Amino acid sequence: MEKSNNHLVIMAGGIGSRFWPMSTPECPKQFIDVLGCGRTLLQLTVDRFKNICPQENIWVVTSESYADIVKAQLPEIPETNILKEPCRRNTAPCIAYVSWRIKKQNPKANIVVAPSDHIVMDVPEFERVIRSGLNFTAETDSILTLGMKPNRPETGYGYIQADLSFASARNKEIFRVDSFKEKPDFATASRYVKKNNYFWNSGIFVWNVSTIINAFRVYQPAIAQIFENLIPIYGTPQEQDIINQEFPNCESISVDYAIMEKVEEIFVLPANFGWSDLGTWGSLHEQVPHDVYGNACIGQNISVYDTRNCMIHTTQERKVVVQGLDGFIVAEKNHTLLICKLSEEQRIKQFSEE
Amino acid sequence: MEKSNNHLVIMAGGIGSRFWPMSTPECPKQFIDVLGCGRTLLQLTVDRFKNICPQENIWVVTSESYADIVKAQLPEIPETNILKEPCRRNTAPCIAYVSWRIKKQNPKANIVVAPSDHIVMDVPEFERVIRSGLNFTAETDSILTLGMKPNRPETGYGYIQADLSFASARNKEIFRVDSFKEKPDFATASRYVKKNNYFWNSGIFVWNVSTIINAFRVYQPAIAQIFENLIPIYGTPQEQDIINQEFPNCESISVDYAIMEKVEEIFVLPANFGWSDLGTWGSLHEQVPHDVYGNACIGQNISVYDTRNCMIHTTQERKVVVQGLDGFIVAEKNHTLLICKLSEEQRIKQFSEE
Repeated sequence: MEKSNNHLVIMAGGIGSRFWPMSTPECPKQFIDVLGCGRTLLQLTVDRFKNICPQENIWVVTSESYADIVKAQLPEIPETNILKEPCRRNTAPCIAYVSWRIKKQNPKANIVVAPSDHIVMDVPEFERVIRSGLNFTAETDSILTLGMKPNRPETGYGYIQADLSFASARNKEIFRVDSFKEKPDFATASRYVKKNNYFWNSGIFVWNVSTIINAFRVYQPAIAQIFENLIPIYGTPQEQDIINQEFPNCESISVDYAIMEKVEEIFVLPANFGWSDLGTWGSLHEQVPHDVYGNACIGQNISVYDTRNCMIHTTQERKVVVQGLDGFIVAEKNHTLLICKLSEEQRIKQFSEE
Repeated sequence: MEKSNNHLVIMAGGIGSRFWPMSTPECPKQFIDVLGCGRTLLQLTVDRFKNICPQENIWVVTSESYADIVKAQLPEIPETNILKEPCRRNTAPCIAYVSWRIKKQNPKANIVVAPSDHIVMDVPEFERVIRSGLNFTAETDSILTLGMKPNRPETGYGYIQADLSFASARNKEIFRVDSFKEKPDFATASRYVKKNNYFWNSGIFVWNVSTIINAFRVYQPAIAQIFENLIPIYGTPQEQDIINQEFPNCESISVDYAIMEKVEEIFVLPANFGWSDLGTWGSLHEQVPHDVYGNACIGQNISVYDTRNCMIHTTQERKVVVQGLDGFIVAEKNHTLLICKLSEEQRIKQFSEE
């Protein structure tokens, strides 16, 4: 594996509506210091790759409206590596665009695609797993996904069913995927978790640039044609204007539907590095440190009394006192306050809109 | 009753520690728009007397540190009517000072003394009661208190026991006081409420200036001597300097202990004008309008779901969503957030200090 060939693609176009009021369409969660550690989720995503990728090989695909935030938060990456989608078209067109763009620069590129809004608690293990995956895709034309070992019957994630009897000959921790499973109901998720060959679909993919481009050519020829035609303009002053014209012509489709579920042979690397996609307040509550009563407090000067199992996130408040709550979210940002049972958090999106 | 003789004395030196975080020592509750109506409690207190007292007869006694706030909130009253206590000495020295000060200006003054942090829901009835009291003290050398008809066994107020068989000959709604009762325990308060001759001690007093000055001379000669000696300097440029020297020599004592409990004949005017001393969040919750689920919400854009019996006061927030609470205080001010059961509100002072 040649380090100079390693590229990181960060997808940073999400709007994080379930994390209101911390996350808003103007500044979604990937641009926020969710953990109260001084770095935003986007910055932490880049930080995790500091030993893996050169800075000039880090790419961020985001919407036009977030480009200035990305530039401000990642001053170390080249401005031309921030690719701007003129409209939302889900993940497949996003990945296609950046793949063709990278290929023009380095046909030997070996790529990790990662969302910008996940957290990883065990960064050394993350780094080891990513290196293992990149070594694999440097040598094979394989599509590799990272599968997270589940510790609970989570209904908010898709699952990957692996065939543990078919380990790759080149890498004994990589297995063939039997099938992808959509977000299950609770009974199904409980069944998955009892088995040892079901993993959460993390949305982190590893492949070399030829593999993914060939997959688009075979399974998504219309999308492939659009970006193939634009090869002459990548890296030129006309790039953004022409992308603004052509990108909206792409079908809006996820890479899971467009590629992963169609390709015959896909691989999974099961891993365990304290991962969460931070889709909801509940997932943040589970991942961050708790006091002995199960309270996770992120913010300055938070005092709790007679309080259990609460997620308190008040980074703009100077002093917070919470007495007598059990199982609640308390979140404040930009003069907006939410108090809501964790068990009712699926209603937050509606609350934020009313 | 001559309107030009009517004076209002507002005591505005309290620090409102049980209303944290809305009320802080830097800006206690009397200077805050507690009701969210656009006027502070101090301003509302003045407003209630607009048909009773000329503006030049309104006096505010406060601590030096709040004088600028008073001046800003009451631009209509003469600056020289804001009397500044150099230190806290409870209510008796405060009342003595302003009484001698007023007497020098108008020996026929007829005075209402009122706290600055109470609320009154029925202002026309308040005005009628005050006029009735002032008519009484314009004609008699009596000390009159207003007694509030109790509607619950409140343990946070002192009580006045009246002798309902001794109505004044001059005013049939005014009775002799049998005794003053300190804040009772719950059983005692319940007993009081079942009778018809126990009233909450509102801390609102009515008397003419000679009556109160004579009472000080008889029952508090040391305090009387201090303010008698200063007659030559009231209203002169030296007043504040000399008050700063002499005021600290006064005993720290409430007017209740110093005068009311010593004078042989005191009168009470039982009244019912939606009064609360707003000592606590619970008292505010009881007085202000509720939704059908018992929630009192003061602030912009507050939405409640599955929520009952809550006091929400978030006047600096732009949007607030509360789901799933029953019987809580939610209060935010100056980047300070409190969530606390109403039943635990006696702990708020401690919370604010920790």
